[in-house]
Amino acid sequence: MTNFKLSIQYDGTNYFGWQIQPSQTTVQGIIKDKLELILQENLVLHGASRTDAKVHAKAQIANFFTEKTINSENLKNSLNKLLPLDIRIKAVEEVSNNFHSRKDAKKKLYRYYIFNNNTGSPFYRNYSWHIREKIDIELLNKLSRDLIGEHNFLSFSGQKCSAKTFNRTIYNAFWTKKKNFYIFSIVGNGFLKNMVRKIVGSLIAVNHNKEDENFIKLLLEVKDPSRAKYCAPPQGLFLEKIFYENI
Amino acid sequence: MTNFKLSIQYDGTNYFGWQIQPSQTTVQGIIKDKLELILQENLVLHGASRTDAKVHAKAQIANFFTEKTINSENLKNSLNKLLPLDIRIKAVEEVSNNFHSRKDAKKKLYRYYIFNNNTGSPFYRNYSWHIREKIDIELLNKLSRDLIGEHNFLSFSGQKCSAKTFNRTIYNAFWTKKKNFYIFSIVGNGFLKNMVRKIVGSLIAVNHNKEDENFIKLLLEVKDPSRAKYCAPPQGLFLEKIFYENI
Repeated sequence: MTNFKLSIQYDGTNYFGWQIQPSQTTVQGIIKDKLELILQENLVLHGASRTDAKVHAKAQIANFFTEKTINSENLKNSLNKLLPLDIRIKAVEEVSNNFHSRKDAKKKLYRYYIFNNNTGSPFYRNYSWHIREKIDIELLNKLSRDLIGEHNFLSFSGQKCSAKTFNRTIYNAFWTKKKNFYIFSIVGNGFLKNMVRKIVGSLIAVNHNKEDENFIKLLLEVKDPSRAKYCAPPQGLFLEKIFYENI
Repeated sequence: MTNFKLSIQYDGTNYFGWQIQPSQTTVQGIIKDKLELILQENLVLHGASRTDAKVHAKAQIANFFTEKTINSENLKNSLNKLLPLDIRIKAVEEVSNNFHSRKDAKKKLYRYYIFNNNTGSPFYRNYSWHIREKIDIELLNKLSRDLIGEHNFLSFSGQKCSAKTFNRTIYNAFWTKKKNFYIFSIVGNGFLKNMVRKIVGSLIAVNHNKEDENFIKLLLEVKDPSRAKYCAPPQGLFLEKIFYENI
């Protein structure tokens, strides 16, 4: 038995998210199909993070066990030949049989991209949230500091969230600006379904004066998903990195 | 009569190029339709550069005359509301009745993007030519210098090229590298159909040792389109800027 670890990039635009779903085209489903075609056996592909429909990944991590013998580099090249161009395998490596891409993940970094100008960009339409209104980055950074630490994020969870506990630890959450982009970086030990998008949506609701400056604190206190009714669109969200070491 | 100048960005992926063609979806066709819907009159939309199918534009320039009275900013906003998100109007201005977007263009800057790594990128698949082989940027820059000046570019013209003369003046042609990208910038007083793509395709043929280092000079001398059989794919090409002043 060999345990292979895959590092995967994908443009989520044309997919119903990472996780296999009946009668939907998903990234996990397509990679599993191609792996089974190459290895000629049924297998289980574990992914580190369940990204939503249209959400992107710069470095999703997955792993699977196989009875077959195959060289990592050959497996990578065969997969990339069979996969569509919007899914690329960046690295394949043999790892210890103890490794589990989801259970061993210590931290995850997500980034959310806002494109801020009057007209939008044809080139970033699938990779950002276009916002015309003025963005107050100091306000967003001030509000984001309230997210840091261990909190119950029930208010920020999506419908059908199957988590056993809603407590998550956020290690860092901040905004940077680069040309027309406002970029939100958030590092946590895990994220509930829709959590980053609901955080960004709620922060922007304060930016747009739809909610007052206590809104984030209030949501963390009330633990009521119906109060955080703002969900940023999926195409601005990127799974950037999964950390397996406590650094 | 008012003459309006439009500055237009588009992602060419889903279009059969700029120019109106029977029973094809083109950028010019869509913008003309929306203008006629807003202004409720038939009009002629002139474009500065005929980009091929799947080629992009950062600043295509067009102009049209209207009998109607409309404010530039309102026209821009109305167009952007009606147009698909892969075509954006960046600016609208009233100009002198003498202005013609194509006839008055003095220089054009095109850029061609090569993405150079082993696997390709899901995010740049529609915006670059993915090349795995090593790129020798010094060689490409040396060969590109032969293009500068006035030459007969018949060898680099595409089929059905309707130009009256094949002489064009190239003011600058050079390569730069930025992360995984090799970027070709070329400024000329005009370009034949497929010319930039055939230039890039021929340069890469030399890079890949399919042709020797005299290939570009030879093509300029022989004036035979069948000799330059290498045409770089359209998705790497961007119309970057049209210059109306001799600078």
